[in-house]
Amino acid sequence: MTLQKLEAWIDTLKTAIISSVDEDGFPNTKAMLPPRKHDGLQSFYFSTNLSSRRVAQYQQNPKACLYFFEKGRFKYQGAMFKGTMQVLTDAASKEMIWLPGDTMYYRRGVTDPDYCVLKFVVDTAYPVRFYSSLKNEDIPFEG
Amino acid sequence: MTLQKLEAWIDTLKTAIISSVDEDGFPNTKAMLPPRKHDGLQSFYFSTNLSSRRVAQYQQNPKACLYFFEKGRFKYQGAMFKGTMQVLTDAASKEMIWLPGDTMYYRRGVTDPDYCVLKFVVDTAYPVRFYSSLKNEDIPFEG
Repeated sequence: MTLQKLEAWIDTLKTAIISSVDEDGFPNTKAMLPPRKHDGLQSFYFSTNLSSRRVAQYQQNPKACLYFFEKGRFKYQGAMFKGTMQVLTDAASKEMIWLPGDTMYYRRGVTDPDYCVLKFVVDTAYPVRFYSSLKNEDIPFEG
Repeated sequence: MTLQKLEAWIDTLKTAIISSVDEDGFPNTKAMLPPRKHDGLQSFYFSTNLSSRRVAQYQQNPKACLYFFEKGRFKYQGAMFKGTMQVLTDAASKEMIWLPGDTMYYRRGVTDPDYCVLKFVVDTAYPVRFYSSLKNEDIPFEG
């Protein structure tokens, strides 16, 4: 697997899994809609509720992982990134990933005070942990 | 949602997601085959490789979460349990969840030294975090 192929695969997926560490030291995991936008494999953007428990956890402790997986008919494939989650509330970030249908979630639109952006920034010091066909593989970032 | 309905739903799923906290304090997440066995919603048993990174993490820090989710055509549903993960290597535990097809993963059979059992023990002090149709709900354990 290469980083390029990994990115192409990620773009086909319907779900992303994010995890945080809570105030008692437990990992917490949640499925999300796929990232609205990503800068290669460097950062990934999600929309979420500012009032959510997950946001409070990331504000306290930004250490995060982002996990993608697919259970195909014959094989599992998964990829895990480690990094930090930033909680963005500035207008530019909120406008950047806003879609018209989001009023279903945020009634007051793009300026809804409960709408915010989660930006997952990959820590490229850690290789991507990739799993496929019973084998684990570490895919390092270049440089 | 009730605990009883939750258990029935979990039994229909094809995947379970487990998370740990690694030595650098990052959450780590991995998809697993569904639990081989569970005692109600108190504990869940998985088979895995003793040599795996995840096992080493749980031996260091047993804090864990177990997450189930389903992306249906129109809605997401998810449930998160907090608890601790025990790594069991005794013969009785290994035999309890062994299936003949497991020789595909563990060539030496049920006594394969790389085959072990992960037992997730739910910490019932924490309610189950349940998500469905855009709403979060805490489902407490009784007593």
